[in-house]
Amino acid sequence: MSFISHLAQRTWTSVKMPFIKTNPDKKLFTPGPLSCSQSVKEAMLRDLGSRDEEFLNIIKLIRQKLVDIGEVPPEEFTTVLLQGCGTYAIEAVFQTSTPRCGGRVLILSNGAYGQRMKKICDISSIPCDIFEFPEDSAVEVAKVKEQLRKGDQYAVVAVVHCETSTGVINPIEELGQAVKHYQPQAAFFVDAMSSFGAVPIRIQNGHIDYLVSSANKCFQGVPGFSYIIARKSELLKCRGNSRSLSFDLVDQYEGLEGNGQFRFTPPTHTLVGFVQALQEFQEEGGVKGRARRYKQNCTVLQRGMEELGFSKLVSGDSGGYIITSYYYPDHPNFDFEEFYYRLSQLGQLIYPGKLSNANCFRIGNIGNLYPNDMKYLLKCIGKVLDGMGVPVPVPVPAPISLPMP
Amino acid sequence: MSFISHLAQRTWTSVKMPFIKTNPDKKLFTPGPLSCSQSVKEAMLRDLGSRDEEFLNIIKLIRQKLVDIGEVPPEEFTTVLLQGCGTYAIEAVFQTSTPRCGGRVLILSNGAYGQRMKKICDISSIPCDIFEFPEDSAVEVAKVKEQLRKGDQYAVVAVVHCETSTGVINPIEELGQAVKHYQPQAAFFVDAMSSFGAVPIRIQNGHIDYLVSSANKCFQGVPGFSYIIARKSELLKCRGNSRSLSFDLVDQYEGLEGNGQFRFTPPTHTLVGFVQALQEFQEEGGVKGRARRYKQNCTVLQRGMEELGFSKLVSGDSGGYIITSYYYPDHPNFDFEEFYYRLSQLGQLIYPGKLSNANCFRIGNIGNLYPNDMKYLLKCIGKVLDGMGVPVPVPVPAPISLPMP
Repeated sequence: MSFISHLAQRTWTSVKMPFIKTNPDKKLFTPGPLSCSQSVKEAMLRDLGSRDEEFLNIIKLIRQKLVDIGEVPPEEFTTVLLQGCGTYAIEAVFQTSTPRCGGRVLILSNGAYGQRMKKICDISSIPCDIFEFPEDSAVEVAKVKEQLRKGDQYAVVAVVHCETSTGVINPIEELGQAVKHYQPQAAFFVDAMSSFGAVPIRIQNGHIDYLVSSANKCFQGVPGFSYIIARKSELLKCRGNSRSLSFDLVDQYEGLEGNGQFRFTPPTHTLVGFVQALQEFQEEGGVKGRARRYKQNCTVLQRGMEELGFSKLVSGDSGGYIITSYYYPDHPNFDFEEFYYRLSQLGQLIYPGKLSNANCFRIGNIGNLYPNDMKYLLKCIGKVLDGMGVPVPVPVPAPISLPMP
Repeated sequence: MSFISHLAQRTWTSVKMPFIKTNPDKKLFTPGPLSCSQSVKEAMLRDLGSRDEEFLNIIKLIRQKLVDIGEVPPEEFTTVLLQGCGTYAIEAVFQTSTPRCGGRVLILSNGAYGQRMKKICDISSIPCDIFEFPEDSAVEVAKVKEQLRKGDQYAVVAVVHCETSTGVINPIEELGQAVKHYQPQAAFFVDAMSSFGAVPIRIQNGHIDYLVSSANKCFQGVPGFSYIIARKSELLKCRGNSRSLSFDLVDQYEGLEGNGQFRFTPPTHTLVGFVQALQEFQEEGGVKGRARRYKQNCTVLQRGMEELGFSKLVSGDSGGYIITSYYYPDHPNFDFEEFYYRLSQLGQLIYPGKLSNANCFRIGNIGNLYPNDMKYLLKCIGKVLDGMGVPVPVPVPAPISLPMP
C-alpha cells in the first residue's frame, strides 16, 4: 500500500491530509529539485553501508568523474562532496577559503544569489565587499577590472555563473583572468550551481580555484549533497580557516582522501542515484549532449512564449539556456498565484520570480525534460491564459530600466 | 539496465569498477545509515516541486508528527527540519543557542560524540567546558550537580542521550532536572540521534529545550536531513546568534513557519521517504512498538554473543538496546579487519569501534532488522570465527579499567 493511501486512511493528530497522488508526477520547470529519470530514482532502491567497500567506491567514482567532466588534471584538482544543499557548499567555500584574520572577500553580484553570498559572509563575520550590477544584464568585465585594480587586496573573489534568479550567464572566464591579473593572491570562486554539466566551463582558462554545484542540477540527480571542485594547492592553504566544523572543506577533503569516507553520515541513497545520473549524462554525450537538449528545450520555450506575447527580462546573449524570466503580462486579469495554480492543476510547475524590482516569473528547462514537454507546457499556458481571460498575445508591460538592487 | 551493469560495461577514466551487485543488499548492523524497508525506498520514486502544495504539506506533516511523537504541546514546541546529516543539526543548535557575546557551553561527555560537540564549539569559537566521564559508564548525575552548583553560569548544557560510540544511555531526565535547578538560565540540549523514536524520552520531564535526531535513525528513514525539536520560547530568544546563515535555526524556523518552505533546496525524495517511514513507525506501535522489537533484537544478539564468549564493554543497565560494543577476543588469530571483511562477504555489515582506549567493535540492532536477522548474524559470526581459527567460546581479554579519554 502506498504511503499516500496510508495517509488517506489514518488520522494523524492535528494534520490535515490533502495528499492526492498525481500520476504521473507534475513536470518541474524549476531550477531544482528537477524532474529526474525513473532509473535515477530506482537506483536509490538500495541500502549501502556508509563504510563498506562498495559505497567507498561510489564516493571515489563520483569524485573522479566530476574532475573528469571539469576537464582538469586530477593531480591539480579534487572534488569535495558535502552533505546537504548547494547553499551549504557556498558557505563552506567562504568559511574555508577566507583566512580568519585579514581575509577579505569581493562578491561580483547581479542578483539574489550574489546577494546571498554577501549575507553568508556578513553572518559569518567574514569581511566582504559587494560590487553590484543590474539584474537584467551580465557582470561587466571592464568595471570589475577597474575595481580590482584600485580596490582592496582580496583573499577571495566570488561570482555566480548562471544567476538562477534571472538566468543571466556571467563571463566567468574573463572575470577569472582579470582576477589573476590584478589580484594574483586572490582565490577565484565560481558558483556554477545551475550551469555545471550543461554550460561549458573552462576551469583552467578561467583560473577557477573553487567551483560549486549540487546533485540536483544539470546532472539530474536527486537533491541531498553538493560538491566543490577545488584546486588542491589553494585548498591545502586553508587548514584552520573554517569557523565551522561541518563546513571545513580541508577536513572533509582529508577524510575523503584518508579512509575514503565522509566524516559524518552521508546521504547514501542520493549518492547511489547520482552514479546512475552520471551514467545517463555520459550516454547523452556529456556536457555537449546535455547542452544540446537544454538549448532545444529553451528554443522551443522562448519561441512559444514569444508567440504568446510574453516579454523576456533578459535580452540578447546573456540569457543563457537554463532558465528564463518573463514579465507578468500587463493585464488586470493576470494574477500570478492564479496562473501558477492553474498550471499546477494541469501538472505543470513553473517558478516564481526572485527579483527586487520587477514582476517576473521563471520557467526552467533543465532536468528530465524534452522539447515535447516544453510544447505541452506552452499549450497549457495558452489554455490557462484563456481560462483567466487574458488575451493572447498577452499585453506587454512598458519597458523598465532595472536600477541596482 | 541497472547502473551497476552499466558501470561494468563502460570505461570511466581512471576509475576501477569493482561493483558487483549483491542481491539482496547486505544487512546493516550499524548505527546508521540503516537498512530501510523496501516501501520507504519506493516512496522516493517521485519528483516533487519544493514549493508545491503537496510537498509543503509533507513538510508540515513531518514537523507536526515529530512534535506529536515527542509528546509535547505544539503550542510550546516546534520541529525545525534541517538539510544534511545529524552533525549539522548539532552544530546548528550550538550556533543558534549560544549568544555571540558571553555565552558559554557545558558539555557532559562520556564518549566520541560528546567530544565532537566540544570540537564543534571550539572551531566556532564558542566558549565551552567539557566535563568528562569514563566511556564505559553513564554520566553521573551527582557529579554533574556539583559542577553545576559551583561552576560557571552556562548558556547551554549539552549531553548525548545514547553515546553511539559505546551504546551507553545517559540519564537525561535527571540531568535536565539538575540543569534547571542549579542553572535555570541555561538551555538544555540533548543529542538523541540514535535513541529518539525507540527509547522513551519525556522531553518536558527532562526540561529539554533542544532535542536533535536525524532521518536515518530509529524512524528508519533514508539519510539526508536532521531535525530539532525545540522549545519555541528558547528558540525565539536566539535571533541573531548564529555565526552561520546555513545553521541559523531561527531563520530556518521562520522560513518553515512563514511560507512553509525550506530556505534552501530540500532533499525532497528523502522527505517523502520519511513520511512512509513515519507511517510504518506508527503501524508498529510508535515508540513502544519499536522499543519492543529493538529490545528483542538486542536480547537475541547479546545472548548469542555471550554464548560465543564475547565480552561486552558496558555492563549493567546503562548499555541500552540500540548498539552494543564488544571487546576483541584475546586470540592471535583474531584480526578485526579480517573479521569485518569475512562477515561482509556473508552479507553482514558490522561496525568498527570508536573508543579512545579499548579495542572494541560494535553491532547495532536498529533499522529494518528482526530477531531472525540477529540469529543469522550470530550464525555467520560463528562461521567466520571458525574460518579464522579463533576458538569458541572466544578467549576473553583481561578486564581493563577505562581511564578518562
